[in-house]
Amino acid sequence: MPDLSPRDRMIQSAVLLVGEQGGEGTSFSQVLAHSGAPRGSIYHHFPGGKAQLIEEATRAGGDFISATLSAMVERADPAAAVEAVVDFWRAFLRGTDFAAGCPVVAATVEGYRTPAARDAAEQVFARWVGLQTEILQRAGVSDGRARSLATLFVAAIEGAVILSRAQRSTAPLDRVLDELHSAIREARSV
Amino acid sequence: MPDLSPRDRMIQSAVLLVGEQGGEGTSFSQVLAHSGAPRGSIYHHFPGGKAQLIEEATRAGGDFISATLSAMVERADPAAAVEAVVDFWRAFLRGTDFAAGCPVVAATVEGYRTPAARDAAEQVFARWVGLQTEILQRAGVSDGRARSLATLFVAAIEGAVILSRAQRSTAPLDRVLDELHSAIREARSV
Repeated sequence: MPDLSPRDRMIQSAVLLVGEQGGEGTSFSQVLAHSGAPRGSIYHHFPGGKAQLIEEATRAGGDFISATLSAMVERADPAAAVEAVVDFWRAFLRGTDFAAGCPVVAATVEGYRTPAARDAAEQVFARWVGLQTEILQRAGVSDGRARSLATLFVAAIEGAVILSRAQRSTAPLDRVLDELHSAIREARSV
Repeated sequence: MPDLSPRDRMIQSAVLLVGEQGGEGTSFSQVLAHSGAPRGSIYHHFPGGKAQLIEEATRAGGDFISATLSAMVERADPAAAVEAVVDFWRAFLRGTDFAAGCPVVAATVEGYRTPAARDAAEQVFARWVGLQTEILQRAGVSDGRARSLATLFVAAIEGAVILSRAQRSTAPLDRVLDELHSAIREARSV
């Protein structure tokens, strides 16, 4: 990560480490070792400590998929949008040998310890659902249906990432993508 | 939990505590306090220590939904089957004020620390998908489609539980259930 600032390198490392181990299982020492940032920089960059780092990692993990979806809004092609998100996860899971997952899920399931990170997770999910809703509406799906179908996209893909990690295979993601394509065809034909 | 043995009480407590805090965040002391089991009983009942307790909690958490689905196989009503699982989660999330979630997800995302629990999680998900596949096949859905639709059911409901926890509202579960009903109608009409 040569072009990033030490602060951004630490956040990117935290995205990966929290996705693999949870925030609870990730130490500042691991983030420093992974990012190569100098030890003295932690409280300079993250005066709120680990809770702040996990919150920022949740937002940064969410921003990546939000940017992918934002870039696809004008195309108004919901099948391409779910395909892009699933492609990202397939590459990510294979690239980490199914060890790492979604830092936004990690922030949610550990929300009792880091409420600010859980709030960030809520906002990330809302943003993803909002973007998928907009893509569906632009593709001609009715407003009410677009919102529930967009929620299905986000829930099903996040769930499939978990099933794929458990099974150490992308087969669950592949099957879920097939079904989301069917759901899109059905919603557009109504 | 008056009719359970101390061992089963400890497993039931672990199902709840691991679903809320993860295995990493749950201590034997908490399990003892929650279950009321005597301290000396831990290594008598769980000679493999916390890893064994988490593995058994994963299986026990899975068995509850597996039993619900098994009892519905003969009815061959996939809409009723997803409704039953979603009803369980709605009551569970409201009953814990959205603090607790699925121990099978917790075992998956912490799989790097407790591989035996991750293997148990893989088997639980496979069992749920297998039962939903059988219900769909008995309802007349083709073999290939039944498997992918069953995978969607499990992934989407588990994902919706996570979105509902983040949002502290069952709205994501409600929306996903509506979409699963649409998917079932579409698959049965093919």
